[in-house]
Amino acid sequence: MDTNEKALKLHKEKKGKISIKSRIEINDRESLSLAYTPGVAEPCRHINKNSQDIYKYTSKGNIVAVVTDGSAVLGLGDIGADASLPVMEGKAILFKEFAQIDAFPICINSNDIDTIVNTVKLIKSSFGGINLEDISAPRCFKIEERLKKELDIPVFHDDQHGTAVVVLAGLINSSRLLRRRMEDLKIVINGAGAAGIAIAKLLYKIGIKEIIVCDTKGSISKNRKDLNWIKEEILQITNPHNQCGQLEDVLADKDVFIGVSAPEILTSRMVNKMNKDCIVFALANPIPEIMPDLAKKHGARIIATGRSDFSNQINNVLAFPGIFRGVLDIKAKQINDDMKIAAAYAIAGVIQDSELKEDYIIPDIFNKRVTKEVAEAVKKSYLKG
Amino acid sequence: MDTNEKALKLHKEKKGKISIKSRIEINDRESLSLAYTPGVAEPCRHINKNSQDIYKYTSKGNIVAVVTDGSAVLGLGDIGADASLPVMEGKAILFKEFAQIDAFPICINSNDIDTIVNTVKLIKSSFGGINLEDISAPRCFKIEERLKKELDIPVFHDDQHGTAVVVLAGLINSSRLLRRRMEDLKIVINGAGAAGIAIAKLLYKIGIKEIIVCDTKGSISKNRKDLNWIKEEILQITNPHNQCGQLEDVLADKDVFIGVSAPEILTSRMVNKMNKDCIVFALANPIPEIMPDLAKKHGARIIATGRSDFSNQINNVLAFPGIFRGVLDIKAKQINDDMKIAAAYAIAGVIQDSELKEDYIIPDIFNKRVTKEVAEAVKKSYLKG
Repeated sequence: MDTNEKALKLHKEKKGKISIKSRIEINDRESLSLAYTPGVAEPCRHINKNSQDIYKYTSKGNIVAVVTDGSAVLGLGDIGADASLPVMEGKAILFKEFAQIDAFPICINSNDIDTIVNTVKLIKSSFGGINLEDISAPRCFKIEERLKKELDIPVFHDDQHGTAVVVLAGLINSSRLLRRRMEDLKIVINGAGAAGIAIAKLLYKIGIKEIIVCDTKGSISKNRKDLNWIKEEILQITNPHNQCGQLEDVLADKDVFIGVSAPEILTSRMVNKMNKDCIVFALANPIPEIMPDLAKKHGARIIATGRSDFSNQINNVLAFPGIFRGVLDIKAKQINDDMKIAAAYAIAGVIQDSELKEDYIIPDIFNKRVTKEVAEAVKKSYLKG
Repeated sequence: MDTNEKALKLHKEKKGKISIKSRIEINDRESLSLAYTPGVAEPCRHINKNSQDIYKYTSKGNIVAVVTDGSAVLGLGDIGADASLPVMEGKAILFKEFAQIDAFPICINSNDIDTIVNTVKLIKSSFGGINLEDISAPRCFKIEERLKKELDIPVFHDDQHGTAVVVLAGLINSSRLLRRRMEDLKIVINGAGAAGIAIAKLLYKIGIKEIIVCDTKGSISKNRKDLNWIKEEILQITNPHNQCGQLEDVLADKDVFIGVSAPEILTSRMVNKMNKDCIVFALANPIPEIMPDLAKKHGARIIATGRSDFSNQINNVLAFPGIFRGVLDIKAKQINDDMKIAAAYAIAGVIQDSELKEDYIIPDIFNKRVTKEVAEAVKKSYLKG
C-alpha cells in the first residue's frame, strides 16, 4: 500500500482525527449539578460581570480555531471548505501533539474577505487564538490584518509566519556555521504568495537589505506594471537596486535562494551563477525547486527542503506549536515580529555550536525541546516588549 | 461550601470543561505523513470528488455544534455569547457523557436572526448536527425553522424539543398508570416560550385536542389583541373552545398542568379547581411552579418537576443524547415529529408496567438504557418514515 492508500485507510478506520474529551466526569447528581445546572450559572455570572473571567472558568484559554476557507489547500488549490477538513483536523492534532493545545477546525464556506472576517469575529468566544490556514494570497494578508486589528485574541497565519520563522531559524544557523553576518546576505525569494511575502518581511525586519522577490514573471521591480497591492507593498522594502529580469538573471552573485514556489524550477545552471558557498532552501512540496544532490554538486553549501526524507527539514511544526503555547500561556493579545524573531532564534539555538554542520542547521521536528524553547522565548519577548 | 462556590472552584481547577483529543497518535515521520502531509491530501481529494465522503474520512459525523447567542441562558437571561460559554461547554460534555457524541460550543456574538443563521451555515463543514441552545423566543423558532430548511444536517433546538419529548414521555406514562386515553386529557400549558410552544405542538401532533397555552397575560385566545406571530400560530391548534381569562380561570376542570414558567405561580387553590387525579408538571427551575408536597396535598395525583431532588425529574438529558445518537448513526438529515414521538415512547418504555407508580413515571437520568433505547427508536422511526 502506498502512502495515499494507507492515509485513506487510517482516516476511515479512525473516523476522522479529532474528538472532544471532557475535563469533568459526570456520573452522579452532584457532579451534574456542578458542571451543569444549577452550579454552572455561577461562572456565567462571573464572566458576565468581568469579561476576563472567561479565561478562568472555561476552556477558551487553551483552544485555538484552525480557520480556513479551503482556497489554497496543500498542493490541491481551491477545494473549498468541506474538502479541506482533513487538513484542518490534521493541523488540530499537531497542535495537541506538539503543544498540548486544543485546536478545532473551522472551515468557512465563503471566499469573501468581509464574510470570513465577520464569521471569525462572531464565533470568537470559544477561542483563545486564531490560526489561519491555507487561505489564498493576497486575500490572506487582508484577512489576517483585519482580524489582528479587530479581535482581542492572537491571530497567526501559519502559512506566512510559521514558514518565515523556520526559514529565519535556518538562516541564523547558516550564518553561524559559515561565520557570515546575516545582514550582509544577498537573498532571492522565489514565490510571492503567503510564505514568500512573509519571509521577505521578516528578513527585512531583522536587517537584511538585499532581498529580491520573484514571481512567475520574474523579479518584482519598479519596472513591472502588473503588480497587485501586496507586491507593490513588498517592493517598498525589497530590490533596492531595482534588478529586473527572470529568476536566473537576478540570481547571479546572490548568497541565498529561498524557494516557496514550484517543483524543479531552480536549475544547476542557476546555482552555478550564485556566490560561492551559497545557501539553497528549496521548500516546494513534495518536489523541491531543486534536488539537494544536484544543488550540492553545483556549489550549494547548505541545502534545506520541506521534506522529511532529506536533512534540514523546514517544517512549520517547529514554530507554530511553541508560538501559540507561549502566547496562550501569557494571554498575549498579539503575535508581533519581535516574538517571531525570538521564536526563530530559539529554534536555531536548540542546535549547539558543537552539533552544527551543513546537514544539521534545523532541529528535528520530533525534538521535544523545540516547542518548549520557542514558547519560553516568545513569552520572554512579549514580557520584555 | 455551597453549590455555587463548589462549581466555581471546579471550573477554575479544571480550566474549563472541554479539550480536544486526537484519534491518531503522531510520534514519527510515518504517522505524520499519514495524518498530515502528504497523505492527508488523499482524503481531501476524495471529499472534493464526492461530498458525502466527508463522513467517511473526517470526524464530522460524530460532532455536534452547541450553538447559542446567549440570549436566554438558564435563569440568567440575555448574558451574551461570552458569559454563556460555561453552559455550552457543560452541554458539550453531557453529549459526550451520555451519548459519546463530540460536541463543541459555538457562541455567536449577535442577536440578529439572519446573522445567526448565516454564521451557522458558513461554519457547517465540521459538524454533523446542530443543537440550538438558550436562544430567546420567538427568535429561536425562526432560527430553527430556517436552519432546518437551509442546512443538510439535523438541527434541534433542545429547549423546545428536548423538553417537549420528555414531557410527552411523562404524559404517556401518566396515562398508562391512570389508565386514561392520553388524547382525552385536557391540558393547560403555562408559559409560551420555547418549551411551552414546542410542548403544545407535540401534544397536538399526537392527537390531544384540548390544549390551552397561557402566557403572563392569561390564556392565548381569539380575544387577545397583543399576540406575536408565534402565539397567533399556536392559537390555530389550541384553545378550541376559546376559553379566556387568567391561568386560574382556565385551569378549572383540566386534567393536566404543565408549567414552563416561573416559581410558585400555581397556587393550591388552582390545583383544587382541577379535575380529580390531576397531573402537575411544574418545571420551573430551580423553584417549581408549585412544590410537590403542596400539589399532592391539594389533589394532584402525579407530580413531576425539573429538579433532581424530587422524584420524576423532567430533564432534557433523557432525550437529546439519544436523539442525536440516533440521527448521527444513520446520517438522518432531519429530526421530524415522528422521531420525537418515538423518542418519547422509548423514554416512557424504559419503565416496566410492574415498576410504574406515581413517583416513578420518568426514568432516572443516569439509567444507561434510556439513551440507547431512544437512539434505537429514533433510527427505527426514521427508517420506517
